[in-house]
Amino acid sequence: MNNKFIIAVDAMGGEGSPKKVLDGISIFCEKNNDIFFKIFGDKNLIEKNISKKVNKDRYDIIHTDDFVKDEDSAFMGAKNKKTSMWLAVESVKNKEANIVISAGNTGALFVIAKLNIEMIDKIDKPALSGLWPNKLGMNVVLDLGANIECSEKNLLDFSIMGTSLFKSLFPSEEAKVALLNIGSEEGKGNETIKNTYQRLSTVKKNFIFKGYVEGNNIMTGDVNVIITDGFTGNIALKTAEGTASFITSELKKILTSNFLGKFSSIINMKNLNKFKDKLDPRKYNGAILIGLKSPVVKSHGSTDSVGFSNSLSVCEKIIKGNLIDKIKENINDIY
Amino acid sequence: MNNKFIIAVDAMGGEGSPKKVLDGISIFCEKNNDIFFKIFGDKNLIEKNISKKVNKDRYDIIHTDDFVKDEDSAFMGAKNKKTSMWLAVESVKNKEANIVISAGNTGALFVIAKLNIEMIDKIDKPALSGLWPNKLGMNVVLDLGANIECSEKNLLDFSIMGTSLFKSLFPSEEAKVALLNIGSEEGKGNETIKNTYQRLSTVKKNFIFKGYVEGNNIMTGDVNVIITDGFTGNIALKTAEGTASFITSELKKILTSNFLGKFSSIINMKNLNKFKDKLDPRKYNGAILIGLKSPVVKSHGSTDSVGFSNSLSVCEKIIKGNLIDKIKENINDIY
Repeated sequence: MNNKFIIAVDAMGGEGSPKKVLDGISIFCEKNNDIFFKIFGDKNLIEKNISKKVNKDRYDIIHTDDFVKDEDSAFMGAKNKKTSMWLAVESVKNKEANIVISAGNTGALFVIAKLNIEMIDKIDKPALSGLWPNKLGMNVVLDLGANIECSEKNLLDFSIMGTSLFKSLFPSEEAKVALLNIGSEEGKGNETIKNTYQRLSTVKKNFIFKGYVEGNNIMTGDVNVIITDGFTGNIALKTAEGTASFITSELKKILTSNFLGKFSSIINMKNLNKFKDKLDPRKYNGAILIGLKSPVVKSHGSTDSVGFSNSLSVCEKIIKGNLIDKIKENINDIY
Repeated sequence: MNNKFIIAVDAMGGEGSPKKVLDGISIFCEKNNDIFFKIFGDKNLIEKNISKKVNKDRYDIIHTDDFVKDEDSAFMGAKNKKTSMWLAVESVKNKEANIVISAGNTGALFVIAKLNIEMIDKIDKPALSGLWPNKLGMNVVLDLGANIECSEKNLLDFSIMGTSLFKSLFPSEEAKVALLNIGSEEGKGNETIKNTYQRLSTVKKNFIFKGYVEGNNIMTGDVNVIITDGFTGNIALKTAEGTASFITSELKKILTSNFLGKFSSIINMKNLNKFKDKLDPRKYNGAILIGLKSPVVKSHGSTDSVGFSNSLSVCEKIIKGNLIDKIKENINDIY
């Protein structure tokens, strides 16, 4: 690896690939000049689709004919060791890149990542973490679905990893950790959560432990690193997505239901667009599998080039923020 | 019990009680004339606060000096057998009322209910169910927090009870049941959910079983009876509440952030109010504890008189829809 930071990109995954992935790289390169890309996939297609605006010294193309299909099972997708996804992950394992990103098959990506990349010492399970807006800025939430059942040790690990991720992404802010629970009083929740609460209250730590957070307070900004098992986290995230989509579609329907409504919505278009922008899911695009010795970033399969470029920014912050070193350091402090 | 339908009301629970409870009764009585109220609480206060519009032959006041405080623990609140809450629940046990409602201490209400009222035969645990809007109408969702951990048998019971509640509230609609899960494919989720899926696919039933529903599809209207354990249900419900509150406050802030915005929002006020009305939580007020031989309705403590009157409508529909008989019938069909 030379002195540049290198992102390994699986160009062949997700809707509209490779074009949306390559356009995402192009958008990203407009505001960045110290990241180099290793792009894995069909060389012909990539050369045809990559923007002329991206200077040729910014990337290498590593050709392969094979790619993981979106409809493959995780196991099937991980079987072929010549897919663009496998090769991209392998390049991180071989230290030829600092981080890997794919918009392709989530299950296959995680299996391939776990097969190739070692766990960080003292961490039992990797977790899927994501960004979630709150009134003051952004939360890091994990686990979002990698582990259906989690032990006290897992949740403790997630607190360390979540804090490290938060500090890599937002270095000037203080990490405020809370456990997602069904009440804010100490006696609430199941045994695992209650035991984790006790541990987090007493261990030496580099974050503020704020106790429990209930679902209705995820977005108030009082806490910014939210810890939960993968089942609950996945349900919470998707319920929030569904609620947002329900409300915005009802709003649109009602605001434009008559002439006066349409007219005043046009006057207020600039504000309405600001609102849309604030809730734009492309801003929060990119789930991060952490716990392995290299982070693996999963872009949403249905996002567009702007969304993909935002996940490239997440990759950049993770590399430059030394996420893995931060986790190693903090985990050694606690155990 | 005479031929009228009777609702036992704990007048002393929740913010702004007894006035908001009594105003709720007054609003309800404007559109209903066959429900009689037994009102439990401080007679002096009740007589002073009840509207003259409510005819005296519509209610009895049962005086007691004692009431459960909002800050009491469930156990403390359930200790005194002379509180308005205890007496109201007891009147249902003694068949002096068809249903009981309180806006007071939730934990105490459930303990008092379980101490006084028997379980329906063959049902193992009562569940807390609630209404949740979807694009086409309304969902019934349970459990919302009564049982942190649930077995396959519990989830099966909840399906029967949820369907019976749905049919009592919306007799002309078909019940479409789904299990809340982190994926829609058959192999997803934990063992309990997968086993329940198998059972629900094969048992004789009076509802359509739609398999799994993910959090983002709770509000699409494809299903309308959603089954989950109390931990997950509580997190999902509160996350939806938090998301709705975040979005509407952002919308308000942005829409009125400048003169043009304020001006056009005034023009569009009628539509904006329609939007507010559609999302008005008072419409969905009232959680129902089902599984006992009499249903117990919990109004939100912080709702107002309109919200309370809406939960009285839920009580009315439950009585007239013969909820308990429906559950007994359907449970006998399945076991």
